[in-house]
Amino acid sequence: MASLLILNGPNLNLLGTRQPDVYGTATLADVEVLCRDTAAEFALEIDCLQSNHEGVLVDAIHAARGVHNGIVLNAGAYSHTSIALHDAIVGTEMAVVEVHISNIHAREPFRHHSFITPAAVGIISGVGIQGYALAIRALAEHLSVL
Amino acid sequence: MASLLILNGPNLNLLGTRQPDVYGTATLADVEVLCRDTAAEFALEIDCLQSNHEGVLVDAIHAARGVHNGIVLNAGAYSHTSIALHDAIVGTEMAVVEVHISNIHAREPFRHHSFITPAAVGIISGVGIQGYALAIRALAEHLSVL
Amino acid sequence: MASLLILNGPNLNLLGTRQPDVYGTATLADVEVLCRDTAAEFALEIDCLQSNHEGVLVDAIHAARGVHNGIVLNAGAYSHTSIALHDAIVGTEMAVVEVHISNIHAREPFRHHSFITPAAVGIISGVGIQGYALAIRALAEHLSVL
Amino acid sequence: MASLLILNGPNLNLLGTRQPDVYGTATLADVEVLCRDTAAEFALEIDCLQSNHEGVLVDAIHAARGVHNGIVLNAGAYSHTSIALHDAIVGTEMAVVEVHISNIHAREPFRHHSFITPAAVGIISGVGIQGYALAIRALAEHLSVL
Amino acid sequence: MASLLILNGPNLNLLGTRQPDVYGTATLADVEVLCRDTAAEFALEIDCLQSNHEGVLVDAIHAARGVHNGIVLNAGAYSHTSIALHDAIVGTEMAVVEVHISNIHAREPFRHHSFITPAAVGIISGVGIQGYALAIRALAEHLSVL
Amino acid sequence: MASLLILNGPNLNLLGTRQPDVYGTATLADVEVLCRDTAAEFALEIDCLQSNHEGVLVDAIHAARGVHNGIVLNAGAYSHTSIALHDAIVGTEMAVVEVHISNIHAREPFRHHSFITPAAVGIISGVGIQGYALAIRALAEHLSVL
Amino acid sequence: MASLLILNGPNLNLLGTRQPDVYGTATLADVEVLCRDTAAEFALEIDCLQSNHEGVLVDAIHAARGVHNGIVLNAGAYSHTSIALHDAIVGTEMAVVEVHISNIHAREPFRHHSFITPAAVGIISGVGIQGYALAIRALAEHLSVL
Amino acid sequence: MASLLILNGPNLNLLGTRQPDVYGTATLADVEVLCRDTAAEFALEIDCLQSNHEGVLVDAIHAARGVHNGIVLNAGAYSHTSIALHDAIVGTEMAVVEVHISNIHAREPFRHHSFITPAAVGIISGVGIQGYALAIRALAEHLSVL
Amino acid sequence: MASLLILNGPNLNLLGTRQPDVYGTATLADVEVLCRDTAAEFALEIDCLQSNHEGVLVDAIHAARGVHNGIVLNAGAYSHTSIALHDAIVGTEMAVVEVHISNIHAREPFRHHSFITPAAVGIISGVGIQGYALAIRALAEHLSVL
Amino acid sequence: MASLLILNGPNLNLLGTRQPDVYGTATLADVEVLCRDTAAEFALEIDCLQSNHEGVLVDAIHAARGVHNGIVLNAGAYSHTSIALHDAIVGTEMAVVEVHISNIHAREPFRHHSFITPAAVGIISGVGIQGYALAIRALAEHLSVL
Amino acid sequence: MASLLILNGPNLNLLGTRQPDVYGTATLADVEVLCRDTAAEFALEIDCLQSNHEGVLVDAIHAARGVHNGIVLNAGAYSHTSIALHDAIVGTEMAVVEVHISNIHAREPFRHHSFITPAAVGIISGVGIQGYALAIRALAEHLSVL
Amino acid sequence: MASLLILNGPNLNLLGTRQPDVYGTATLADVEVLCRDTAAEFALEIDCLQSNHEGVLVDAIHAARGVHNGIVLNAGAYSHTSIALHDAIVGTEMAVVEVHISNIHAREPFRHHSFITPAAVGIISGVGIQGYALAIRALAEHLSVL
Repeated sequence: MASLLILNGPNLNLLGTRQPDVYGTATLADVEVLCRDTAAEFALEIDCLQSNHEGVLVDAIHAARGVHNGIVLNAGAYSHTSIALHDAIVGTEMAVVEVHISNIHAREPFRHHSFITPAAVGIISGVGIQGYALAIRALAEHLSVL
Repeated sequence: MASLLILNGPNLNLLGTRQPDVYGTATLADVEVLCRDTAAEFALEIDCLQSNHEGVLVDAIHAARGVHNGIVLNAGAYSHTSIALHDAIVGTEMAVVEVHISNIHAREPFRHHSFITPAAVGIISGVGIQGYALAIRALAEHLSVL
Repeated sequence: MASLLILNGPNLNLLGTRQPDVYGTATLADVEVLCRDTAAEFALEIDCLQSNHEGVLVDAIHAARGVHNGIVLNAGAYSHTSIALHDAIVGTEMAVVEVHISNIHAREPFRHHSFITPAAVGIISGVGIQGYALAIRALAEHLSVL
Repeated sequence: MASLLILNGPNLNLLGTRQPDVYGTATLADVEVLCRDTAAEFALEIDCLQSNHEGVLVDAIHAARGVHNGIVLNAGAYSHTSIALHDAIVGTEMAVVEVHISNIHAREPFRHHSFITPAAVGIISGVGIQGYALAIRALAEHLSVL
Repeated sequence: MASLLILNGPNLNLLGTRQPDVYGTATLADVEVLCRDTAAEFALEIDCLQSNHEGVLVDAIHAARGVHNGIVLNAGAYSHTSIALHDAIVGTEMAVVEVHISNIHAREPFRHHSFITPAAVGIISGVGIQGYALAIRALAEHLSVL
Repeated sequence: MASLLILNGPNLNLLGTRQPDVYGTATLADVEVLCRDTAAEFALEIDCLQSNHEGVLVDAIHAARGVHNGIVLNAGAYSHTSIALHDAIVGTEMAVVEVHISNIHAREPFRHHSFITPAAVGIISGVGIQGYALAIRALAEHLSVL
Repeated sequence: MASLLILNGPNLNLLGTRQPDVYGTATLADVEVLCRDTAAEFALEIDCLQSNHEGVLVDAIHAARGVHNGIVLNAGAYSHTSIALHDAIVGTEMAVVEVHISNIHAREPFRHHSFITPAAVGIISGVGIQGYALAIRALAEHLSVL
Repeated sequence: MASLLILNGPNLNLLGTRQPDVYGTATLADVEVLCRDTAAEFALEIDCLQSNHEGVLVDAIHAARGVHNGIVLNAGAYSHTSIALHDAIVGTEMAVVEVHISNIHAREPFRHHSFITPAAVGIISGVGIQGYALAIRALAEHLSVL
Repeated sequence: MASLLILNGPNLNLLGTRQPDVYGTATLADVEVLCRDTAAEFALEIDCLQSNHEGVLVDAIHAARGVHNGIVLNAGAYSHTSIALHDAIVGTEMAVVEVHISNIHAREPFRHHSFITPAAVGIISGVGIQGYALAIRALAEHLSVL
Repeated sequence: MASLLILNGPNLNLLGTRQPDVYGTATLADVEVLCRDTAAEFALEIDCLQSNHEGVLVDAIHAARGVHNGIVLNAGAYSHTSIALHDAIVGTEMAVVEVHISNIHAREPFRHHSFITPAAVGIISGVGIQGYALAIRALAEHLSVL
Repeated sequence: MASLLILNGPNLNLLGTRQPDVYGTATLADVEVLCRDTAAEFALEIDCLQSNHEGVLVDAIHAARGVHNGIVLNAGAYSHTSIALHDAIVGTEMAVVEVHISNIHAREPFRHHSFITPAAVGIISGVGIQGYALAIRALAEHLSVL
Repeated sequence: MASLLILNGPNLNLLGTRQPDVYGTATLADVEVLCRDTAAEFALEIDCLQSNHEGVLVDAIHAARGVHNGIVLNAGAYSHTSIALHDAIVGTEMAVVEVHISNIHAREPFRHHSFITPAAVGIISGVGIQGYALAIRALAEHLSVL
């Protein structure tokens, strides 16, 4: 049975209480329930991890090799600054779909560039927490094609 | 019954024959079948239009007001150069989800910026033609929330 | 009897319904009435044309040679992207006064540069639809001086 | 009876003798006569001031509060360098129409940006000294609408 | 018998009457005669098309597949702004030689970059209308080598 | 009784031994004594934390919600690179006064921009360790005003 | 008895009436009372000067040599444009603490750079008019250390 | 008898006391003696003026028309920021030789560009106060050639 | 009998052995034969020179005055870095057609700008060694027109 | 007996399995054996540490003071983003030789700048894992000279 | 027996007398002795050449083909400006290790970029003249692996 | 008896025949006579050298050590591109006064920056060939002060 890692980065533990006009009122727990439900439609197992530490996220991507078949990654602010996460994805050759809850290209200029994107299969941005569900669908399709 | 416009821009009529390593082998007709099938799951009607003319695309967005409830827009190369399309979306207040078959942020620098994105609900990029299906899901969700 | 072309570009057909906080509530028909009234004060005939197609605007400038004595041009979004319109003005040597309803230099950075301006006699921006009337006055003065 | 301030900045005292190919042969006195005549059409009083000192221009904008209903401002070279003038307009909330005799966007790059513009109602540039008359009309219209 | 498309973009219909100091006095008809004569030397047929519409030019490149063996393209102002034309050439894999009558690198900075060039076999710029004849020679050589 | 968090970032544990010409000879312990003394003047409690780990600093800002009433933050080098810290402040809506011992705008260009500043109440830079005392005063004032 | 100059630049005479959401409701007179009270705590005399003229501010810094022991300088808009003020501080070797009422780094980009900062002891920005009091404390400390 | 204006800008009244490692120990009075002596060699009269006010310098250039035959101008910091001085020179068509005591191109980047230079006959920079004498020689030569 | 100089710059002596995928397999000797044959068609004499020394190329252009009627110049890498070659062409007023074997605008960014181009009659790039033959034709035409 | 720290940053634990075309097939263990052997030639002890956490690397540099005589540092992706590591080296005054296995200047532009380099004695890049051995030699030489 | 070329560029003949604080006191002769000794350890022959002429250095790289097995290249100032040297290395496919005595990335910005680096096997910078010895070791290893 | 080197760079051998509107009609021989006459006033010997070869100019600066007391250097186009000349001046510690016949800051942007300037005592630009005489005076003064 195939398996995905749902990996969330800095400040996503604040979901539901942080800037609800930008990020909505759903909590991280709500996101993880949504992911589990969507994964079940495709008979996929999931593990969920959130950390505010760049190094923990890098470690998690390394640990996913041989354990998970793909990663849904919302690296939050580290998307814009972390070459280390870029290298971790390229180095492990994990299939990653990048998610952003808000439309990062409609916000401050420093959020317009992501080091994750060129290393990812694709990106889903701006459609709220539903983006996680769409990313799981995209990965399910991606894995079925391989 | 709600309805969506599936709007494709320049060179997307070449789908299936153009750079298959970048865009895959599915044709525009295949994309439209996929869209119709996905829309049916959500009891949505769709209309499909493709044009290589920027003005025709602007006209189509104008004409969608009062006719369609949302637009799936792959503006192709015009994404990167057309402020007119940006203004048409903002001016008509249509709900647009932007789609790109390839991961535009992993290609040439002149494809990294899109004038569509800041005017759109969200963007789905890099997951192949499946991106159209995900965009219809995102719009269905978006419309149900309103 | 001298004559002017009132040439409006993309999305200006939406006037009155598009972002009234930016563009006001007057419609394109209102603008054309205002232009006709102002032109009459100076015994000038006018023709009015609006198009969302860059090519149609270029064609219209070409066709104005030998027919009109000057052009009031609001090229909308194409002001910022169209070298073809710039070249059409320079190539036909038509006297053009550029108009923008909103103050383009107080909006997004991508609206701060216009390819029309260096090819035009002058520019009137930010004084609402009255800008069309002022442009006709400026052209009337310009033509009387020649 | 409403009143306007006609405020001219550095080097505009040279009008008529400075680069006539760029600025024409009319003198500053001619400009002030033109302004007075145009203002009379709208039953507006005007005061005229010219200074080569940035501080004097800032002081004049401050002093206009409660005395004048609007300002026609040709800040000359200070348009391109003076944040202090920008702040004076914003701080006093005076209605300002910016005028330039020549088309500043068709000249050297350092004249393409104006700190006045984002603080002004609008801008009229490139139509010669007639721009002052058009600016008075625009302010008359602006004041009648309020 | 092999065949070429001679494709001219915006404002090139003004040839002979537009800025003769820059573009010379030959008309578009003269250019087409020159092309036909040069093509005949190599037993090549030619078709000629000029349009001010970007979309028409994109359509023409698409239509050339299977009909013509190469394209001599002077995209005029669209050279500098049209990613859509770039994509049309790459997508159809047509052999294109880019021509500019004037030396675009010795003119305004916004004419120094061409989106056509990286998609073309080569570029000939600045040698007047003779550039069309040289481009046909280059394509004849290019086709004979394949 | 209100309470503040004194949060110090990377390399500030080296205070007193690191580049004394830039940072002075006082140690981090000296800074914390100064903070405690100043806070006592305003009947404020303080907690002190220093870490070289960006993630620990983000966690600490999260944990401060509901526990502290404001934060004095010297994020050291992370000021210039961490969008995650920016987001943590915005997401928790904590009142932060940013402190830098040296004048960051008089040093290398890469220290001139801080991601903390736009998310902070204010910034105090260049007045040595006394900046911490001034920041506590500023927060005390800020809290008394709310 | 030591003495400080409190030097305010352009538009600060508008304090209390100018954009109260940005600058608060205290007037320049209130600021000077606050300064006098704070200075008294440290047995410091103060002189206060405000001018909208860059030259007057330069003259005042020159005149402060041998008369004052330090300067609290809010140069307003001239902070961002005046190399002359920078040179006056460096040339007289006066100890200057720069103050801004609002957080200049959280406003328009053209306010992010200050020519005063690299010539100053330090900068206090964004903590309201209290910044003047903190600056006097910082100078008192600075002078006691010398 | 021909005559020159020796015009010095902001902070040059500090000469001899300001940063002697950069500007030397000669005072402004010494400079004026040197100028007078050198001018005498060429039977030229001179007038000397120094001001810290940009407006005063502009006024002085205007007043020089018809009175002086050339200007030796060290505009100090205003060299780098004053388009108004540039315009005053161009508008009066005065022959100006620009002088800088220090080598402005070997100092901070913001001193590398001068708005005076493109409006001046020439520039002499970095040879100390002797630069004034060389500038007078250059103007004497320049005037004798006309 | 008219005469041309065929001038080749650095590394072009490696032709045929250097990166054949970029430059083809023809040698410099082959190029010179091609040039001689093409020149003969137009009754032109040619001289050929290749050097890896920028100074030798400058000297050669100087020496061509009064000896040759035009120059076919492939300056190789010096095209992108040599203002001296630019000045030599402008200073001698030689008619130069610039040639590049590969399409320099489709290669690394540092090859996109050429200092030769703005000083040349025109440029032929990307059509292989045939570019030399086309350049001779272009010069023959250019000389016949003069 | 002198001692060195061999400090490896993010993703270097993947050595041997990550992009072998870029980084080769040797593992991190192989690197550490090579370091130990080379160090033995110079009678140097070594300690080895690898971490994906920026904070751990900063801590390790701090801890090296008084324990090690120099550091061989391959900070991986953090080289390009970490001012904190830069400051740790400068703050501890440790002698550091920077190593990169691949030639970072021949890869993506975002790898061309390193914050480590200006704080390091020197840099060795692109000679594979042998770079570690060369760095130990360089440090041995550096220490013997002191 | 394998052989290396030790190639030194402009101003390196001044070694030992030029800026000893930057480059040390060893002369070029000392460097060549060091190279000869190191090469002997690996049974490698060496030839040494220094020139201040870019063209001579290009010629030398060409001449090395078939004669030497690798090049240790310190191109001095030409590293930062010479695309011709870049092309010579790429064109001859010589194995080059780039050496800089000083740490070029810790000096002026114009020394931070090298055109040699992307064409070289690797770079050794900042470890003094010992860098030459390390480069020979790196080449010896590189050649033994091939 | 002290001695100067008058060193002229590329294309200055064309003086008098090259663009007389920019450079005047005096020849290089005229310049050398002027230099010799001016030097004689100060009892200085001079040697003159002109070369189009960057390497020859570098060699000449090296050779001047111990032979000449200063250099008047007009490096022509190499001023803008040659770091090698910059390094030669710094490395030999020769006193150099830079001369340009035309005002390089009023010409094309690529002539605005000079690598010579930061290494030179000073610069004289735009006063024609008289600049050489002024430079000799400046050096005479400079040498007399040492």
